[in-house]
Amino acid sequence: MTRVAVYGSTGYTALELIRILLRHPGAEITALTSRNEERPPIGEVHTALAGRLDLRCENLGPEEVAARCDLVFCALPHAASMAVVPTLLESGVRVVDLSADYRLSDPAVYETWYHVEHTDAERMARTVYGLPELFCDAIPEADLVANPGCYTSTSILGLAPLLVEKRVDPRSIVVDAKSGVSGAGRGLKLGTLYAECNESISAYGVGNHRHTPEIDEVLSTASGQTVEVVFTPHLVPMDRGILCTSYCDPLDPNWDEAEVLDLYRRFYEGKPFVRVVEHLPRTKDVAHTNFCDVTVRRSRGKLVVLSTTDNLVKGAAGVAVQNFNLMTGHPETTALL
Amino acid sequence: MTRVAVYGSTGYTALELIRILLRHPGAEITALTSRNEERPPIGEVHTALAGRLDLRCENLGPEEVAARCDLVFCALPHAASMAVVPTLLESGVRVVDLSADYRLSDPAVYETWYHVEHTDAERMARTVYGLPELFCDAIPEADLVANPGCYTSTSILGLAPLLVEKRVDPRSIVVDAKSGVSGAGRGLKLGTLYAECNESISAYGVGNHRHTPEIDEVLSTASGQTVEVVFTPHLVPMDRGILCTSYCDPLDPNWDEAEVLDLYRRFYEGKPFVRVVEHLPRTKDVAHTNFCDVTVRRSRGKLVVLSTTDNLVKGAAGVAVQNFNLMTGHPETTALL
Amino acid sequence: MTRVAVYGSTGYTALELIRILLRHPGAEITALTSRNEERPPIGEVHTALAGRLDLRCENLGPEEVAARCDLVFCALPHAASMAVVPTLLESGVRVVDLSADYRLSDPAVYETWYHVEHTDAERMARTVYGLPELFCDAIPEADLVANPGCYTSTSILGLAPLLVEKRVDPRSIVVDAKSGVSGAGRGLKLGTLYAECNESISAYGVGNHRHTPEIDEVLSTASGQTVEVVFTPHLVPMDRGILCTSYCDPLDPNWDEAEVLDLYRRFYEGKPFVRVVEHLPRTKDVAHTNFCDVTVRRSRGKLVVLSTTDNLVKGAAGVAVQNFNLMTGHPETTALL
Amino acid sequence: MTRVAVYGSTGYTALELIRILLRHPGAEITALTSRNEERPPIGEVHTALAGRLDLRCENLGPEEVAARCDLVFCALPHAASMAVVPTLLESGVRVVDLSADYRLSDPAVYETWYHVEHTDAERMARTVYGLPELFCDAIPEADLVANPGCYTSTSILGLAPLLVEKRVDPRSIVVDAKSGVSGAGRGLKLGTLYAECNESISAYGVGNHRHTPEIDEVLSTASGQTVEVVFTPHLVPMDRGILCTSYCDPLDPNWDEAEVLDLYRRFYEGKPFVRVVEHLPRTKDVAHTNFCDVTVRRSRGKLVVLSTTDNLVKGAAGVAVQNFNLMTGHPETTALL
Repeated sequence: MTRVAVYGSTGYTALELIRILLRHPGAEITALTSRNEERPPIGEVHTALAGRLDLRCENLGPEEVAARCDLVFCALPHAASMAVVPTLLESGVRVVDLSADYRLSDPAVYETWYHVEHTDAERMARTVYGLPELFCDAIPEADLVANPGCYTSTSILGLAPLLVEKRVDPRSIVVDAKSGVSGAGRGLKLGTLYAECNESISAYGVGNHRHTPEIDEVLSTASGQTVEVVFTPHLVPMDRGILCTSYCDPLDPNWDEAEVLDLYRRFYEGKPFVRVVEHLPRTKDVAHTNFCDVTVRRSRGKLVVLSTTDNLVKGAAGVAVQNFNLMTGHPETTALL
Repeated sequence: MTRVAVYGSTGYTALELIRILLRHPGAEITALTSRNEERPPIGEVHTALAGRLDLRCENLGPEEVAARCDLVFCALPHAASMAVVPTLLESGVRVVDLSADYRLSDPAVYETWYHVEHTDAERMARTVYGLPELFCDAIPEADLVANPGCYTSTSILGLAPLLVEKRVDPRSIVVDAKSGVSGAGRGLKLGTLYAECNESISAYGVGNHRHTPEIDEVLSTASGQTVEVVFTPHLVPMDRGILCTSYCDPLDPNWDEAEVLDLYRRFYEGKPFVRVVEHLPRTKDVAHTNFCDVTVRRSRGKLVVLSTTDNLVKGAAGVAVQNFNLMTGHPETTALL
Repeated sequence: MTRVAVYGSTGYTALELIRILLRHPGAEITALTSRNEERPPIGEVHTALAGRLDLRCENLGPEEVAARCDLVFCALPHAASMAVVPTLLESGVRVVDLSADYRLSDPAVYETWYHVEHTDAERMARTVYGLPELFCDAIPEADLVANPGCYTSTSILGLAPLLVEKRVDPRSIVVDAKSGVSGAGRGLKLGTLYAECNESISAYGVGNHRHTPEIDEVLSTASGQTVEVVFTPHLVPMDRGILCTSYCDPLDPNWDEAEVLDLYRRFYEGKPFVRVVEHLPRTKDVAHTNFCDVTVRRSRGKLVVLSTTDNLVKGAAGVAVQNFNLMTGHPETTALL
Repeated sequence: MTRVAVYGSTGYTALELIRILLRHPGAEITALTSRNEERPPIGEVHTALAGRLDLRCENLGPEEVAARCDLVFCALPHAASMAVVPTLLESGVRVVDLSADYRLSDPAVYETWYHVEHTDAERMARTVYGLPELFCDAIPEADLVANPGCYTSTSILGLAPLLVEKRVDPRSIVVDAKSGVSGAGRGLKLGTLYAECNESISAYGVGNHRHTPEIDEVLSTASGQTVEVVFTPHLVPMDRGILCTSYCDPLDPNWDEAEVLDLYRRFYEGKPFVRVVEHLPRTKDVAHTNFCDVTVRRSRGKLVVLSTTDNLVKGAAGVAVQNFNLMTGHPETTALL
């Protein structure tokens, strides 16, 4: 039994993570934190958890958290995470970090996109990127795993086969991404009020969304070539789900869809959470699951890749537990089917 | 042409009101206010109004507002309204007040439910209640009209025929009300975040919602007997619309549905915005309109009254313009069909 | 390992049931049926199941189904169910019937509400009603369990403590129920098109919904007195979830909320799926779970009971597995947390 | 006063059209059709119209329709439209055809995409395309106007300035389009059931949606060069609204956003329904209006054009009335603001 803590437990990702961990036979939740000094029971912070877990959210420092557990799921915002992760690691606990702080390898890129100096820059380049479908070899031994962004995972799982196998022009990629509103977090913002985003779709962060350099870096690393994508996120009136519609130019203009799908099937053989499907995937089918459904179509000269995940599960809490499973020697699918 | 101002123009009701007024041949919007010192153009405050109206939201006192217009639509929160209405009236402008401040006649009742002392108590009992279907005689000459609450109008229009005609037990009434989220306003509250209230329904304010004494008072006044309702509001995952499902005991247990509907048709004859229908009404049919659809069914011993409105239109901005029409001698339906 | 079949596998309840059974360590799905002669793979009928289960939906008769399994979840429509259940039972398999066919004990009542003659009437009165919170003693030994209706469970779990303990007037009950659209099934009907029911709420079946006699009978049986409720269902724009707002008159007008909640906590002690909460429950908190959240408020003279479930889980597929657990000696919560 | 008929009045577009026409001072609705032999009142076909219009839907042939009106809005499906339009025109009435039958000029292209032979092919090339922002000169005198498709208008209004002014590579265009569900019509299809498309987004018709050749042809004609777009439509869980996110390569890689927006403002000067905005447009702001909001961003090397409409208004019924206004000498905005 691994004793786990959730550092930062008031958001939607933390709720999802706790739900999954409560089903996990090898994890025991021993600490939950929030900055609220009143130590509210988790069942009040998230009424969905009423009666499920008799713990309070405590305002704990990293040493206190480390003293209570073997592994920490760090669900803090970026910048807050790098303020506690070094101490957690030095205290001997392992960390799955769900923030952006350790996803990029280059501090300069981090600072360009996040507008804050990285205070643990030296650790960035040697942190394992927690996308098991690409980096499962490094995850089991890692002390720190950087859990991917939700748009990032969904984009990468859609595009990796084409890029790794060098079948498309790495400079031709457009990712048009659509996300449910939970991806915007639980903070109070006018733009995420129900009456603002219901019955509406709009783009946001065009040209400057912070998942862009992460997609670039991971696809470049995985494929051994420079990949730079045009990435446009949209807010869709639904709770959860991401659909990435990605466009790229195949190197072989005559490549047909069946061959592309064969490539995908081979690439993801043995990966339990990527389903290469023939129909056009919809987010509903992966909602509340750790699956990524993906397919490809030709449209005139382009390949159109369609990939879907639940942003809170495969895009955050689910893949965090998938990483936990790899780190602790459980079957990859434990608590995730 | 009547010059009108909207006092408090950042909320959803104000947006709806401006939209309707822009279609009104007899109204010219000459001032808009907010407490924002930066004087934002209204097209930035409400992007839906981009290019429609070249005015800024200004932080104006009541004398300044009065100097620019003939009539003010006061769309401030309760308590804020009674701080400016006396000055507006003394400055010679007429007022349609969309807050709760002048809806009740008894200051003590106001203070019990709103937890604030009424600073213009003397004016309360002589203010005209702006529900045209019941009080159209008094509205044309009024200087101050108290625009009804959204739940209130919808409940009252459903129940008034039965109570005014004394066909049901006035102590038997349960109003189970369901509202879209825009009714909760544009303020930043956890409970109105998209990811909190989407895919969910819940009751709120059980036993203590502030529209309760308003429903009681208006139905009591209109029917000449003491009416006290059990009122339970619910939040429904949709932008707009109210459905009130009201239960009451008929005095004649053998009264049949056809006779009830006849009573309703006679009661609302000549009222252009109440549609007595035979089907079960749905909020979608009245969304973006000033209509109230109503029908009645028997269920075992009870009468079940179903009444629907758009909370922002017939429940707020639309009836405000309906009152404006009556006050300024326009046909009641101008700009509202 | 129990070999189970799902008889009628194309609807939403069947999808949910298969999802839960795939997590169950003691169940193996060995047959799925539909009337489609083309034997589609279940992953095409429900794309959410792509890659999860390598079975086809076959058009099988009851003997064929019985030959392949030990227990059948019968997810057929009413009337279709009673056409196969006798043969299934005679073939020696046990049945959890999710239709309405065996829920009522009196064939005449069935025929009045369902407008069809019952062809297995003799079995009705001796069938065990599968609401484990009230009838867990009889379920383990039953060969046929009648799985409750979704509105029924939610209403009954809200009202049972008050009626069984004889604390309210059994003739005073109004149940105002609100359901997500999945409750209306997967058939093609104008009223369940997205553009008809999105952004809308309406009542339906006022005074004649078929769950009414079921609520009456179960509450009457459980409480030893004649209960007759006024039941009004509404369609809410969300996928899943039921909220029942039930009104009744307490016998003791001075009974306070804290005492009522104490009664509920005692009544449901040891029942793992009923959570007596202090906050007003919302359907979101029980969505995708087998929980029923319930609380009570006083509003003027009335008690207002608020109870919530997921109509597809605790209202159908989840309680079916809960019954399966009791029937097969598994812990009641297996595969359901 | 122009007497108008709506040919095919049971769908969502017809409902929207009737609503707008009821506000039009120069139009009188004199006939409504459907194939239903029972002649239902329009207030039953569309309960939203209860009490608004005392007409029945009649099963009328084109001569009968022509005998009752001066102008027909033909809201039939494709193929059905070309079966009646010739007779209508020969009978001396003018036609705004909302189907696809007269939008394309080449019968072979029509047959390729619609899989049906065109029975009035000769008229195709000389029909005026009813997009007033591009073809307002030809519309006033036309007897037959082909009302554009909803995706088409939204795509074209976004891209036309760049292509007509020859500022982008006409072969570089990707249109990633998102639509509310009303765009899929009121027919009974599994894919448009609420519980199928709520809480979900998916692409459909990738590479083969019928609005593709229409976008190609209109943009090619307007810009005098061959334009061929990659077009991918998506279904979004909302009633109405289209957002087109269009990607293209600018000829001048240093062109900045401000200059692009200036070009757009000049291009649409004097066009009352296109709003060139600086913020990222959202469909909510144009819902229930005839506006198209558009803006442009640079993202790495690409221009990203964002254009929004209400698919039922500017995408169908609203532009039909805009065309009607031009054809009958009314101000372009009559009944549309």
